[in-house]
Amino acid sequence: MDLLIKNGMVLTMNKKMEIIDQGFVLIKDDKITESGDLKDCSGLNVDRVIDACGGIIMPGLINTHTHASMTLFRGLADDLPLMEWLEDHIFPAEAGLNKDKVYKGAMLACAEMILSGTTCFCDMYLFEDQVAQAAKDAGMRAVVGEVLYDFPSPNYGMLEKGFEYVENMIEKYMNDPLITPAVEPHSTYLCAPELLKRASDIANKNNIPLIIHVAETLNEQGQIKEKYNKTPVQFLNDLGVLSSNLVACHSVHLSDDDIKLYKKNNVKVAHCPESNMKLASGIAPVPEMLKNGICVGLGTDGCASNNDLDLFLEMDKTAKLHKVFSLDPEVINAKTTVKMATIDGARTLGLGDITGSIEPGKRADIIIVDTKKPHLVPMYNPYSHLVYSVTGSDVAASIINGQIVMENNKIFTMDVNKVMDDVRLIAVDIKANDLR
Amino acid sequence: MDLLIKNGMVLTMNKKMEIIDQGFVLIKDDKITESGDLKDCSGLNVDRVIDACGGIIMPGLINTHTHASMTLFRGLADDLPLMEWLEDHIFPAEAGLNKDKVYKGAMLACAEMILSGTTCFCDMYLFEDQVAQAAKDAGMRAVVGEVLYDFPSPNYGMLEKGFEYVENMIEKYMNDPLITPAVEPHSTYLCAPELLKRASDIANKNNIPLIIHVAETLNEQGQIKEKYNKTPVQFLNDLGVLSSNLVACHSVHLSDDDIKLYKKNNVKVAHCPESNMKLASGIAPVPEMLKNGICVGLGTDGCASNNDLDLFLEMDKTAKLHKVFSLDPEVINAKTTVKMATIDGARTLGLGDITGSIEPGKRADIIIVDTKKPHLVPMYNPYSHLVYSVTGSDVAASIINGQIVMENNKIFTMDVNKVMDDVRLIAVDIKANDLR
Repeated sequence: MDLLIKNGMVLTMNKKMEIIDQGFVLIKDDKITESGDLKDCSGLNVDRVIDACGGIIMPGLINTHTHASMTLFRGLADDLPLMEWLEDHIFPAEAGLNKDKVYKGAMLACAEMILSGTTCFCDMYLFEDQVAQAAKDAGMRAVVGEVLYDFPSPNYGMLEKGFEYVENMIEKYMNDPLITPAVEPHSTYLCAPELLKRASDIANKNNIPLIIHVAETLNEQGQIKEKYNKTPVQFLNDLGVLSSNLVACHSVHLSDDDIKLYKKNNVKVAHCPESNMKLASGIAPVPEMLKNGICVGLGTDGCASNNDLDLFLEMDKTAKLHKVFSLDPEVINAKTTVKMATIDGARTLGLGDITGSIEPGKRADIIIVDTKKPHLVPMYNPYSHLVYSVTGSDVAASIINGQIVMENNKIFTMDVNKVMDDVRLIAVDIKANDLR
Repeated sequence: MDLLIKNGMVLTMNKKMEIIDQGFVLIKDDKITESGDLKDCSGLNVDRVIDACGGIIMPGLINTHTHASMTLFRGLADDLPLMEWLEDHIFPAEAGLNKDKVYKGAMLACAEMILSGTTCFCDMYLFEDQVAQAAKDAGMRAVVGEVLYDFPSPNYGMLEKGFEYVENMIEKYMNDPLITPAVEPHSTYLCAPELLKRASDIANKNNIPLIIHVAETLNEQGQIKEKYNKTPVQFLNDLGVLSSNLVACHSVHLSDDDIKLYKKNNVKVAHCPESNMKLASGIAPVPEMLKNGICVGLGTDGCASNNDLDLFLEMDKTAKLHKVFSLDPEVINAKTTVKMATIDGARTLGLGDITGSIEPGKRADIIIVDTKKPHLVPMYNPYSHLVYSVTGSDVAASIINGQIVMENNKIFTMDVNKVMDDVRLIAVDIKANDLR
């Protein structure tokens, strides 16, 4: 199908950061073929036209770290110390998970992400094949990986079966147009060195992302120090696990040497400011990482620790948090922040050639932001608006892999009311068990 | 008119923090007369019924500190050091203000606030009578005060005329159903002791709020230290200006003694976390103030330093910022944060008997939050949702002083498209002058 999106400000997010004030984007099947000035698209013969009505046409946002199905636990327990939150509420709730619940939770997450402008997400969870299926059904691009750790999993049981599950996922999705398989050992504190090494080998053999929670909390830092007398990053480095395929999620507590190790090994980082704030984990040294040329994407983390999947809000937090923490309003600007949520997010996930910018040859992952709203008037600078004023609810349309997935708040790939009802039903049980 | 709002969860925010799971609120003319269980409202004979459709019925939010007309400068200049931002962009833009521009900017602010659930705001600016008029035209409750400082004002010229203007405003609005006059000297660094003292005397004589920017930046702290060898709070205390009428906006840089002086004098605080973050001013010691029993409300500050007027986002920032800064997830919880945005905001502005909670006898300032959206499913805890998941765009209806001001995104008191067009036109000039 030939699809033309026209009559909006096109933020390409290409290398030159070109902006077309009044432009168009032409899509053929799943790919972007052209973009340019509005006046140059009048003669084009296409199957379908979307009028952006003067809004912003931009790459869809990339969520580099989440646990989609945790929508099931959104607001179940908040404002608690991390271990009480995990052990008394989240872990017991997760023990009751199964394929069906994970699928339904992931569908709700996809609905929320599509409505708020995210076109690609990177997921770590249990029963991950169901998350992949939900993403495909919803029409979203996703990086998926079954979580691996030293203890038995409610999905695959013992670890050996876990690696089998991962290998099967890789085989199943290796050439999928929407899904990218990944290898996802949980963390340095829940995974033995052998697990981490083997996971890393599989990722590197297949040249796919290796996703790990790294240096998220002071507690973790203390545990690894006690166990190995190293920082989590040094520990991973000594194992030979740091590589350009590694996405180090959170990376809150880093030493200067840790940052140098990231840079040397071309490690990517998924920065999750809202989760780090809400769980009181700490503030990641993002300005220092950016100064060192490390590629940093943005992630929402799961809905139990955020409690939403809106990447526009994550951008706002990113810029403001680092300004106030450093007492320097110039330490990170709006343009850099939008890059983190788009092209740098794609690069973080190894998808920099596929998505994250509006360039001919890339897959058509594009959103339109409606700027005809009081809180977006006037507009002097689109980057400033996207970071400081836009929220997910301002997204008017979403095209993923060339498919129109959402327009005017209507998602075409699912029955959103049924998706919400399904989760409400599951939540009744979760609530009942949580109160016990 | 008798108005019935029914079929929603009623968050009263009364002293007992009562929640009615499925309830109703009855309004007669401008006042709330009753609230209760849904089953008890079936026989009521009313003029108009609003169905909350299972959403949250709650008090409208109170914005305790803003400069409404600064919507004109939203995103004009960001990511800059404070003085460069002020002197190179904001002050030159403000020099071109007049009555017409201030009115139009304030109308846009009212549109944005109404759509995002704010029913009452406290304003400080130039040509403040126009802001009062805009609030009345929009049907909003507002506390208004002309800004006073030592140098000539584009509105009133020399200071003596400024005090005349203030006295006229007090006379004009003293018994207005929507508008409360206030006295608003800018700050300790732009106002001589005599100005501050005289302003305080007028506020206390009329028992109306005295609104001042206090201890917002380290720069201010340094200036006052150098000039008076005191902290800004000590300086105000020694002048006799600290009182229960004082709303100390920002209050970022406070010593333990400053907090004790606030407590002793029953000073109120308008906390503006997003502005303080974006301008890199610092982090106000809100947990310490709350521990000391100081009444703290939330404010957005102006749109040039935020860049929106959405108090739901301000709640989210409040809870998360103080958690991560203290590394303590329990330091401030969702319920406390909702209080700050409602009843404590009303108390901050001296309107605690008028608004801020759903209680018989109070003015009907009520909003309905639509919870039938993917990012608000499931719902285990309404306070958690309001702080961590809801944004202003989820507000489905707004009733102010008994008048239905907005329903389903439609504001009944203004032509929003015209209001946006008016500001877009003004912005063309502002942009042209900014580029010189």
